Amino acid sequence: MSNEMPTALNLPMVDPLPEQTQKYFDVCTEKLGMVPNVLKAYAFDMAKLDTFTAMYNDLMLGDSALSKLEREMIAVAVSAVNKCYYCLVAHGAAVRQLSGDPALGEALVMNYRVAKIDTRQRAMLDFAVKLTQASATVEEQDREALRAVGFSDRDIWDISSVAGFFNMTNRVASGVDMRPNEDYHAQAR
Amino acid sequence: MSNEMPTALNLPMVDPLPEQTQKYFDVCTEKLGMVPNVLKAYAFDMAKLDTFTAMYNDLMLGDSALSKLEREMIAVAVSAVNKCYYCLVAHGAAVRQLSGDPALGEALVMNYRVAKIDTRQRAMLDFAVKLTQASATVEEQDREALRAVGFSDRDIWDISSVAGFFNMTNRVASGVDMRPNEDYHAQAR
Amino acid sequence: MSNEMPTALNLPMVDPLPEQTQKYFDVCTEKLGMVPNVLKAYAFDMAKLDTFTAMYNDLMLGDSALSKLEREMIAVAVSAVNKCYYCLVAHGAAVRQLSGDPALGEALVMNYRVAKIDTRQRAMLDFAVKLTQASATVEEQDREALRAVGFSDRDIWDISSVAGFFNMTNRVASGVDMRPNEDYHAQAR
Amino acid sequence: MSNEMPTALNLPMVDPLPEQTQKYFDVCTEKLGMVPNVLKAYAFDMAKLDTFTAMYNDLMLGDSALSKLEREMIAVAVSAVNKCYYCLVAHGAAVRQLSGDPALGEALVMNYRVAKIDTRQRAMLDFAVKLTQASATVEEQDREALRAVGFSDRDIWDISSVAGFFNMTNRVASGVDMRPNEDYHAQAR
Amino acid sequence: MSNEMPTALNLPMVDPLPEQTQKYFDVCTEKLGMVPNVLKAYAFDMAKLDTFTAMYNDLMLGDSALSKLEREMIAVAVSAVNKCYYCLVAHGAAVRQLSGDPALGEALVMNYRVAKIDTRQRAMLDFAVKLTQASATVEEQDREALRAVGFSDRDIWDISSVAGFFNMTNRVASGVDMRPNEDYHAQAR
Amino acid sequence: MSNEMPTALNLPMVDPLPEQTQKYFDVCTEKLGMVPNVLKAYAFDMAKLDTFTAMYNDLMLGDSALSKLEREMIAVAVSAVNKCYYCLVAHGAAVRQLSGDPALGEALVMNYRVAKIDTRQRAMLDFAVKLTQASATVEEQDREALRAVGFSDRDIWDISSVAGFFNMTNRVASGVDMRPNEDYHAQAR
Repeated sequence: MSNEMPTALNLPMVDPLPEQTQKYFDVCTEKLGMVPNVLKAYAFDMAKLDTFTAMYNDLMLGDSALSKLEREMIAVAVSAVNKCYYCLVAHGAAVRQLSGDPALGEALVMNYRVAKIDTRQRAMLDFAVKLTQASATVEEQDREALRAVGFSDRDIWDISSVAGFFNMTNRVASGVDMRPNEDYHAQAR
Repeated sequence: MSNEMPTALNLPMVDPLPEQTQKYFDVCTEKLGMVPNVLKAYAFDMAKLDTFTAMYNDLMLGDSALSKLEREMIAVAVSAVNKCYYCLVAHGAAVRQLSGDPALGEALVMNYRVAKIDTRQRAMLDFAVKLTQASATVEEQDREALRAVGFSDRDIWDISSVAGFFNMTNRVASGVDMRPNEDYHAQAR
Repeated sequence: MSNEMPTALNLPMVDPLPEQTQKYFDVCTEKLGMVPNVLKAYAFDMAKLDTFTAMYNDLMLGDSALSKLEREMIAVAVSAVNKCYYCLVAHGAAVRQLSGDPALGEALVMNYRVAKIDTRQRAMLDFAVKLTQASATVEEQDREALRAVGFSDRDIWDISSVAGFFNMTNRVASGVDMRPNEDYHAQAR
Repeated sequence: MSNEMPTALNLPMVDPLPEQTQKYFDVCTEKLGMVPNVLKAYAFDMAKLDTFTAMYNDLMLGDSALSKLEREMIAVAVSAVNKCYYCLVAHGAAVRQLSGDPALGEALVMNYRVAKIDTRQRAMLDFAVKLTQASATVEEQDREALRAVGFSDRDIWDISSVAGFFNMTNRVASGVDMRPNEDYHAQAR
Repeated sequence: MSNEMPTALNLPMVDPLPEQTQKYFDVCTEKLGMVPNVLKAYAFDMAKLDTFTAMYNDLMLGDSALSKLEREMIAVAVSAVNKCYYCLVAHGAAVRQLSGDPALGEALVMNYRVAKIDTRQRAMLDFAVKLTQASATVEEQDREALRAVGFSDRDIWDISSVAGFFNMTNRVASGVDMRPNEDYHAQAR
Repeated sequence: MSNEMPTALNLPMVDPLPEQTQKYFDVCTEKLGMVPNVLKAYAFDMAKLDTFTAMYNDLMLGDSALSKLEREMIAVAVSAVNKCYYCLVAHGAAVRQLSGDPALGEALVMNYRVAKIDTRQRAMLDFAVKLTQASATVEEQDREALRAVGFSDRDIWDISSVAGFFNMTNRVASGVDMRPNEDYHAQAR
C-alpha cells in the first residue's frame, strides 16, 4: 500500500482500521491488486466510509437490469462531462476490463457520441449526460425516449441513480483533489 | 399520507413496509407532519432507501463543524444552480426553519450572492457553487480560500461531500420527476 | 415608509416629492401596504420615475389578451433565468396572489418546466425564456409555435415586450443592488 | 417611407397617425432621412409608442454625465452580446456618426475588447457587458471598479439603465424580427 | 505600406523579403491596394508564411463546388462565433465585395440567422457554426442534413475544412492581437 | 494498410498515389507501423494533403523553442476542450511516447489542471485552453503572463499557432467523422 496521500487534505486513515474494514481492504488488495484510493480517502471516518461503500455496492454491484458494464459506461460518460480525473481513470479501466474493448473505454472518456454502442445504450447515455449537464431540462419526453428503447421505470430509476451518484463523486473527488492509483493506467489496454 | 405518486415512475412502495421502516415513517409523520416524498420514492426497494437515508443522516445530521443550517445552506445553493424543484422546496423550508429568517431561504433559492451571510459562509457557498458548476476547475487555491477563513481540512471534506450529495439528489429528483410534499410551501414563512 | 436605502447607490429621493408622485405613493401604501422599493429607487429623478411607471403600467396593467397573471408569470420565468432577487421576490408574490396558488409561484421561481400550466402558457414561457437566454436564435418557427397554440401577432408582441421589459429591470436591479421590501416574503403563502 | 413591414408581425400602423406622432415622424424624416423602423413597429399602438420614445429619449438624449456617444457605445456593446441585428445596425451607425471613427463602430460590433478606448470607457463597457451576460454576478466590487475610474453613483445608475434598456430592445427586436432601415448600412463609413 | 506593427508581438518581417515573396506582396498592393496584415504578420518566417498562404489559397481560391462567396460566408459566420476582429473586418469586406450586398456582409457579422440566403446556404452555415460551437456534437444526421439540400461528400469536406481553417486563424489572430488594415472598413459599403 | 474508410465520407484516395506520396506513406508504415488515418483522409486530393502536411510538419516538427512534447501537450489540451476523439487518441499516444509518462497523457486528455507539469507549461496550456474556449477574451495581460514565465514573442506565436492548428483539425475531424487507427490505443501505456 503506497504511503502517498490519496487527496490534498490532511485526513489520515483511522489507525488501526477496524477489523472488518481491514478485511475489506485485504480483499481489495487480493482481488484488485490495490486498495482504491477513494476507500483510503474516506477511511478517516468509518461512518462515512461505510455509507459510501454501501451505496456504491448497491448501485454498481447490486441487482439491476443494467449490466455492470452499462453502469460503468454511465460512470465514465458522466465523469467525462465533469472532467473528473479520478473517476475517469478508475472507471475507464473498469469499462476496458468489463468490455474487453479498450477503444470503448477511450471513446467514453473522450466523446461518448463516437462510441460503437447500440441504440439502447446510446439512449441510456444521452439521458445520463443530459441529467449531468442540464438536469432541470429533463422532462417526461426524455423518460419516454428511454421507455421507447425498452427501459422499464425501474431501469430509469437506476440510470438516474448511477448518473446522480457519479455527479456526487466527481464533485467530492475534485473538491479534495482525489488521486487515482497509478496501476489503473496500464490495465486492460 | 397522500396517495399521490411521489415521482413520474410507477414504482410503488413495498407493502407492507418492513417494521423498522414503518417506524421511521411514523416518526417522520409525528415530527414533521409528513413523510417526505423522497423517502416514499426510495421505498420501492429497502436497500436503496437504507443506503440513501444512512448517507443523508450522516452528512446532514451527523457530527460536523458545519452547523445543520450551514449544511442546509449548501443544499439550497447547490440545488439553485441545478434548478431542482424538489430540493429547493424541501431544503428552502429547512433553511427558513433553522434560521428563523425567511428572507435568507428566499435569497439562497434565488441568488445566493445577495444573501446576508458572513465572509466564512460566503466562502463556503462560493466553493460549493464552483464545485457544482465547474468541478474540474477547483484547485488548491480554492481550498486555500476556505482555509483562509478558518475552515479545516475536515470541513473542506464536509463542504465537498454535502455539495456532492445534492448534486446527486438534484439529478435523481429531476430524472424521476420527484414531487415535493405540498406542506413545505407554507412552512416558516 | 422604511428609511432603508432601496439600492446600493446614494441617490436619495427628491424631497419633497412632487404632489402627483406623493399621491401615487400614498395610493401604493393604501393598496399594497407599502411603496415598492423600485419606485423609491427611481424617485431621485422624476423623469426617470415617470417613464418607468408609464411603461410598466402599460405593459403589466394595460389592455392585452394576456391576463395579468400571465404577464406576471413571464416576469418570474424571465427573472429566474437572470436570477434577479428583487424581481423574483416582488413578482413571485404577485403570481401567488393573482393565482391563489403558492406552488405555482414557487415553481416559476425554481424551474418553470415543472409548473402545472396548460400547453398555451407553457409555449408562452418557452418563448419568453428562449428570448431571455438566446434571443438571437429566435426565428419564425418560434413565432409559429405561439400561433399554433392560439396566440395572435399582437399577443406575440406583448409576450416579447413583457419578456424584454424584465430583461431590462433584472439588469437595472442587479446593477444597482435593488432590495425588495421585506413584506413580499410572507404574502399569499 | 418604405412600404415594407418593419417586423414579422402583421401589426399595421395606426392610420392616420395622430397629428403629434405624424409631426414626430416628419421631423425624423427631415433630420435622419428616414423614420427608424422601430418607431414604425411600435406605431400600431400609440400608448406603446409613446412610453417607448419617452424612455428612449430620457435615457439616450436626456441629461447625463455619460456623453451621447458613450451611451451609444453601451448600446452596441450590449447588442453585440445579444447579437441583435436591428440594434447593431442602427446603433453601430450612431457610434460611427457621433465618433467620426468607423473603426470604433466596427470594433464595438465585433469585439469591444479591441476597441481603442480609454480606461474609463473600458470599465463602463465591462460593467455593461457583465450585466448583460451574467447580471446576478454583479456585486459591490463591480460598482467599486466604476467608482475607481471616476464614475459617480448617478453614472452607475445611468450605465445600468442604458445597458438594461438595450437588453430589453434586443429581445423585443429578436422576438418580432424587427428589420433595420437599409440606409443605416452606408452611413458614416 | 504602413509601418504600424500588424500584431502585438515584436516579430519584424524578414528584411529584405525573398524575391518571390516581395513579388507576391507587390501583386497584393496592386490588386487590393494593400498587403493584408495577416501576410505581414507571418512574414517573420518564410516557411510559416508559405504554408499559410498555400493552405489559404487552396481552400479559399482553389477548385470547389462552393463558390468563393460561399467560402467567405463561412469565414464570416465562423469568425462571428469567435468574435475575431481581424477576420470579421477582412472577410466581412470580402463578402460585401463578392456579393455586392453590404447588408449580407453585415448580417453575417451580426447574426447569420437573419441573413437573406437560400436553404442550401443556411444549411451550410448551420453546419459550420455547429462545428465551431460544439464540434463534438456533430454526427451523421448533420451530414445527412447537408446531403438533403444537395451537398456532396466532397462539399462536406470543403465546408468542414473552411470552417476549421477559420477556427484556426481566429485563434492565431486573437492570440497575437492581429490588427486589420484600416482600408477594409470603407470597402464595398 | 486497413481497408476501412478513415472517415464517414466517400472520398477514396487517389489511386495510384503519386510516387512521392507513396514514398511518404511507406516511411510512415516503416517508422510508425501505420499510415495515420488523417493522411489517408486527405489523400483524395494531393493539393489538400500537401498543404496539410506542410503546415503540420512546420508547426509540430519544425524549429521552435517549444519542445515536440510541449507542442503535443498543447494538441491534447486543445483537443480535450473540443472533445475530438481522433486527435485525443493520436496525440494522447504521442504525449505518452515522447514523455514516457502514461499518466501525463491521461491527465491532459481528462483534465489538464491535474497534470504534474511545471509553472511554465501550465501557463502555456492555460493560454492555449483560453484561446480555445474564448479566443476573443485573450488580451495583452494574457501574453504578459506568458512573458512572465519566460516565453518570448516568437514562443507566443508558436503557442497560438499550435493551439489554432488543433482547433482546425478538431473541427475537420468531427465534421467528417475521422477515425483513429486502432493501434494508437495500446501505445506507450
